Amino acid sequence: MTLQTIAFAGSRLDRADHVRCNPDKLAELSNWRARLLLLDGLDPVVSPDGRLAWGTLADADAEAELVFLGLDGERACFAQVPPSLNGNVGPANPRLWQAMATLDAGELATYGGARSMVDWHARHRFCARCGAPTALAKGGWQRNCGSCKAEHFPRVDPVTIMLVEHDGNILLGRQPRFPAGNYSALAGFVEPGESIEEAVAREVLEEAGVRVRDVRYVVSQPWPFPSSLMIGCHAFADDPTVTVDVTELEDARWFTRAEVEDAMRAIARLEGGSAFRAPPPTAVAHHLLRWWVAKG
Amino acid sequence: MTLQTIAFAGSRLDRADHVRCNPDKLAELSNWRARLLLLDGLDPVVSPDGRLAWGTLADADAEAELVFLGLDGERACFAQVPPSLNGNVGPANPRLWQAMATLDAGELATYGGARSMVDWHARHRFCARCGAPTALAKGGWQRNCGSCKAEHFPRVDPVTIMLVEHDGNILLGRQPRFPAGNYSALAGFVEPGESIEEAVAREVLEEAGVRVRDVRYVVSQPWPFPSSLMIGCHAFADDPTVTVDVTELEDARWFTRAEVEDAMRAIARLEGGSAFRAPPPTAVAHHLLRWWVAKG
Repeated sequence: MTLQTIAFAGSRLDRADHVRCNPDKLAELSNWRARLLLLDGLDPVVSPDGRLAWGTLADADAEAELVFLGLDGERACFAQVPPSLNGNVGPANPRLWQAMATLDAGELATYGGARSMVDWHARHRFCARCGAPTALAKGGWQRNCGSCKAEHFPRVDPVTIMLVEHDGNILLGRQPRFPAGNYSALAGFVEPGESIEEAVAREVLEEAGVRVRDVRYVVSQPWPFPSSLMIGCHAFADDPTVTVDVTELEDARWFTRAEVEDAMRAIARLEGGSAFRAPPPTAVAHHLLRWWVAKG
Repeated sequence: MTLQTIAFAGSRLDRADHVRCNPDKLAELSNWRARLLLLDGLDPVVSPDGRLAWGTLADADAEAELVFLGLDGERACFAQVPPSLNGNVGPANPRLWQAMATLDAGELATYGGARSMVDWHARHRFCARCGAPTALAKGGWQRNCGSCKAEHFPRVDPVTIMLVEHDGNILLGRQPRFPAGNYSALAGFVEPGESIEEAVAREVLEEAGVRVRDVRYVVSQPWPFPSSLMIGCHAFADDPTVTVDVTELEDARWFTRAEVEDAMRAIARLEGGSAFRAPPPTAVAHHLLRWWVAKG
């Protein structure tokens, strides 16, 4: 599966790790040519031509911390963490969904990575080890405690998301918060002490009471709400008996290949009338379903 | 690849998510039959019969926080986070390597998961958002801030580790801290805003100056130092020119299939004499190399 097809992957910025670790180089690049990604809280600002809006470092709040996003050619790109951003982050909103439909893949990826970083800084201004204030370091790819000297790094939370297959059918579920008719792949965070394959098996057993075998990796996606790494997998089940964990899901059931194909056609045409509404192309679950339909 | 062959995967405990979220059930299970994993700091305590040593909740420090590890049949298993554990965690030590050679796979996985959790609690006693003290919640699978009410969750840090192939040879590198002669797969943390495939490509380019294509997932492993999820991959390179990032690596170079086969035989027999010393079976890099040799 090509990276370009996956939302939030494929940023064209060079992360330029060598710059982060070099304060002199970073200072030199923080010049009048440097670009500042404009954000409204954590939401993207989209210019009239449908692209991410950028300013210069002169547009940054004087008290803001600056995160070095990477290089666009010779120009350094930054995002700011203004003091007013307090880590009270709401869920994705209509403005964001609009931007996701407008921005090209590379820009959406640049925005997603920046959003995760800015959000992490806004919610990690203190040391989890001792409670003292921390300060941004290494261009924003680290925070250091001024008191106990602990070093803190941005989080990436691995999440497994999986299609389970039995007798040519696929298990999908819906959370109570989903719009009516929507079903998607089951998913859950990988926990300390388990492999990807174990996390897949545990989540499916917890949420649907189904035991799986032959877990196979399919595709991954960064998902910036706030900073997940979606790990898309496929597995087989021998016993289709479903026992829904009603604390997690409203429903989970098997769909036939024809129903999935129909739902994927409907979502592509923005039509209704299918047995369920499939996840949109921005979601990795969409790509899992597309992969499953294509593999036949 | 079967889970049993991967170190730190395959715990036999049932994580019993439904218990974590049920304070009454958790209290009921915190009885005289419950087991407490005995640790020396973060190191395992191995009994004379070569198994993990367990006590009862009566053995816990009165001031300790208790992490619910899961169920062993009807019995709840816990690990304690004593107040004396301050998050000053050293690297893996000889005692730990000894235990890794002694414990069976399931017990090593139980220990690894417990170690990651205890270590996380010891280093996250304060709220990263506001600096106030936090308290253990949901059997240790969450910490809550008493002041700003933020919820914090244990970390799992995804790390890509990869074999890069060109013309039938494999690229391996060595860090300055490695024992003389040791080479292993290149590796690095997945960053916010990138997919697994992008992280693999970035790390190989950063560390060895080599561009890759066709990244493929092979195997994963939880690695409790402190809480990584190793994501083992394979990729191809078209241009074998290596430019070593000397801030990360002492050397990186191509090894022939014969050299890798020889090194894998030597490590299995604990012999020397091969072109390089391969990583041990506890490391996911060992399994990547074994997979590569087997695929021919």
